[in-house]
Amino acid sequence: MSEKTIPYKIYLNEQEIPKQWYNMRADMKNKPAPLLNPGTLQPMTFEDLRPVFCDELVKQELDETNAFIDIPEEIQDFYKMYRPSPLIRAYCLEKKLQTPAHIYYKFEGNNTSGSHKLNSAIAQAYYAKKQGLKGVTTETGAGQWGTALSMACSYFDLDCKVYMVKVSYEQKPFRREVMRTYGAEVTPSPSETTNVGRKILEKYPGTNGSLGCAISEAVEVATSHEGYRYVLGSVLNQVLLHQSVIGLETKTAMDKYGITPDIIIGCAGGGSNLGGLISPFMGEKLRGEKNYDFIAVEPASCPSFTRGKFAYDFCDTGMVCPLAKMYTLGSGFMPSPNHAGGLRFHGMSSTLSQLYHDGYMRAVSVEQTDVFEAAQQFARIEGILPAPESSHAIRVAIDEALKCKETGEQKTILFGLTGTGYFDMYAYQKYNDGLMTDYIPSDEELEKSFASLPKVD
Amino acid sequence: MSEKTIPYKIYLNEQEIPKQWYNMRADMKNKPAPLLNPGTLQPMTFEDLRPVFCDELVKQELDETNAFIDIPEEIQDFYKMYRPSPLIRAYCLEKKLQTPAHIYYKFEGNNTSGSHKLNSAIAQAYYAKKQGLKGVTTETGAGQWGTALSMACSYFDLDCKVYMVKVSYEQKPFRREVMRTYGAEVTPSPSETTNVGRKILEKYPGTNGSLGCAISEAVEVATSHEGYRYVLGSVLNQVLLHQSVIGLETKTAMDKYGITPDIIIGCAGGGSNLGGLISPFMGEKLRGEKNYDFIAVEPASCPSFTRGKFAYDFCDTGMVCPLAKMYTLGSGFMPSPNHAGGLRFHGMSSTLSQLYHDGYMRAVSVEQTDVFEAAQQFARIEGILPAPESSHAIRVAIDEALKCKETGEQKTILFGLTGTGYFDMYAYQKYNDGLMTDYIPSDEELEKSFASLPKVD
Repeated sequence: MSEKTIPYKIYLNEQEIPKQWYNMRADMKNKPAPLLNPGTLQPMTFEDLRPVFCDELVKQELDETNAFIDIPEEIQDFYKMYRPSPLIRAYCLEKKLQTPAHIYYKFEGNNTSGSHKLNSAIAQAYYAKKQGLKGVTTETGAGQWGTALSMACSYFDLDCKVYMVKVSYEQKPFRREVMRTYGAEVTPSPSETTNVGRKILEKYPGTNGSLGCAISEAVEVATSHEGYRYVLGSVLNQVLLHQSVIGLETKTAMDKYGITPDIIIGCAGGGSNLGGLISPFMGEKLRGEKNYDFIAVEPASCPSFTRGKFAYDFCDTGMVCPLAKMYTLGSGFMPSPNHAGGLRFHGMSSTLSQLYHDGYMRAVSVEQTDVFEAAQQFARIEGILPAPESSHAIRVAIDEALKCKETGEQKTILFGLTGTGYFDMYAYQKYNDGLMTDYIPSDEELEKSFASLPKVD
Repeated sequence: MSEKTIPYKIYLNEQEIPKQWYNMRADMKNKPAPLLNPGTLQPMTFEDLRPVFCDELVKQELDETNAFIDIPEEIQDFYKMYRPSPLIRAYCLEKKLQTPAHIYYKFEGNNTSGSHKLNSAIAQAYYAKKQGLKGVTTETGAGQWGTALSMACSYFDLDCKVYMVKVSYEQKPFRREVMRTYGAEVTPSPSETTNVGRKILEKYPGTNGSLGCAISEAVEVATSHEGYRYVLGSVLNQVLLHQSVIGLETKTAMDKYGITPDIIIGCAGGGSNLGGLISPFMGEKLRGEKNYDFIAVEPASCPSFTRGKFAYDFCDTGMVCPLAKMYTLGSGFMPSPNHAGGLRFHGMSSTLSQLYHDGYMRAVSVEQTDVFEAAQQFARIEGILPAPESSHAIRVAIDEALKCKETGEQKTILFGLTGTGYFDMYAYQKYNDGLMTDYIPSDEELEKSFASLPKVD
């Protein structure tokens, strides 16, 4: 099809929103290693996981065989409120960069949570409601997941308790207010409200908090309160499953216009967006049908793929959660407080870790000031003010487009624009004022952090 | 067509974005009264207006005869980056209210400026660039217009100086940062940087500022700097013209599904959104083809339609701008600082004022806490966190839907959801904390303000 017929924004019809999620694990020869019970070091069973997650979500977490899982109608209805999300051709950016590359991005920011996180939040809230629970607990880093979950819980009339990483809580008072507007209770973490929070505060006095700490607190509250379960916005298999709607919609939209991406780029913190975006494309690669160049982009200040170890580790700082085999910096790793936005998790999705380990994708790390330079450039050219997280992917998409300019190759680049930066203006202000700095952990710092890895293998 | 076939969101194709703006004045029997030169009290001519506005915009301002004006291709291209905007069927809200009414809203918030303001900003920036100007100056109240103009100027590489109402500047530091990210220079108003600003500060020491003050400053800077012109985000005929894209898209979308609205509701500050939304529908009413119940919703704290006088008045506090015949509270009227968001202008579009005066539309005023109650309810049910301005329309849409519930009438209600509230969380926080209050100016206060009206008629 000729280029002229491709609009700026490809919107699917409501009927084309996926009715099934796609489960990448079904097509993986080497399945991701199972979660281990931290007490027995045996694989977690359905019964082991039931006190933490809803039954249906435990099933999804453990399901390695079904490639497609039906999306319940109630979730499909909610998806219709903000999906399908547009696949955008970055005509203006291409022109400005003078690149022969064709650049597309799937924009997940056009909903009040401001990111793709809502795709899984609504699913998790739905299953909690269906099981007759009173409410759910969770952690949030930059605030996108907490906001998404607040919205989802408000829709299904569920109680919602959010532990928010302290540094974000302080830098983003308005994120907190959005969650409160949706009826959530928000507590800065680490806090005095849990045993594990008090222990962490004792061990790391004055800490700015981390996603790992907040997870520990949220899990404690869920497991010690009748009628509550814990929900998580990334890392888990179930989350990647729900997020597959991103990739499925993208693929349908591209197929409509006969577009095949050469490079697929996503930012990676715990892997929810990257895993969702690449799902159907990775499926083709796993089945040997097609080849794609997948790139995970992570911050140089929290480089789990590029500098972490592939090992069993705790998902949380308090070491109360199951062990996952993943690329990790160690559960005690505390990202530098100068780091803006999310992507602060010490580990990475087990599924993506396995794929990366098996050579199905590559990873690069980028520095913060370079990321904000790309963010500002993108905002001014494409109009959308990107979240710092998403801007990691923008940075590498621009870099790849500039490589095409040098080589003359007309590659098709697809990246995930996970969200908007409206609540990240504190970080933008630092950048605008020339006060933003970079931080790269030293080898010594990482070695010290790796020392906390449990002895499993 | 059966109800089932109407999707949650009606998106037009890119080809269906209007290629011409619609000029309501062409169909008005009683034309809006002309702007008057504040010195001579004679109608402003093309030559009078040239030092203030770009030539092409002056033409549009004075054009009372051409019903349709071509949208330049460069502006159409920019529109494609964020338009068409969705027309949304509020299925969830209808269900929650248990109303037989059908509720639709045109959502203009899915762009980085967060509102409909971008529709006119990009047009005004385009004409400034085409005329070879260096830059533009403007005022902004809540910040939506300033943000939109910053984006538009960044796209066309124009310098952008924004005078921001002081109370907003202080309550919304992050709005300022968005504008800076797009390269704008933002000054709190009234300021010491202009003669008129210094005079206002002398007369009203410690003032929180008003849109009228900020206009005076921006006009002074534009007219005293070579290569600059002034641009305005509301009130003017040219702005209503550009904003007609809202109504034109809405009408095309509704016509596609055979939907005819009974009631059309818009919030009204200066009239840009309301005027744009109702344009093609009002055209039908003016030509006697159809009847609609148009409702302008304004804050009880700044009630220009419902308690103002229809008279010639200055558009600015410094009394340097032309006089417009409009519903006004007097150019010295200072809205209570407890009032959140925009809709703080003392006057109203001349076009809308004439239509209101001639009985083509009605107006209601609503109190702030009622508005935020509706905003929170809407956010929780429909998912979108609305701007305080837009929430005025939501309040009345809900009220009308509840009337239908009482009477059993199945009316079709259309309202304009002008934008999102991501930068209004300070106000939401006040509401969440139970600290939000209402303010209704006393008759004495208004009489005192009316005393400043110039003697013209």
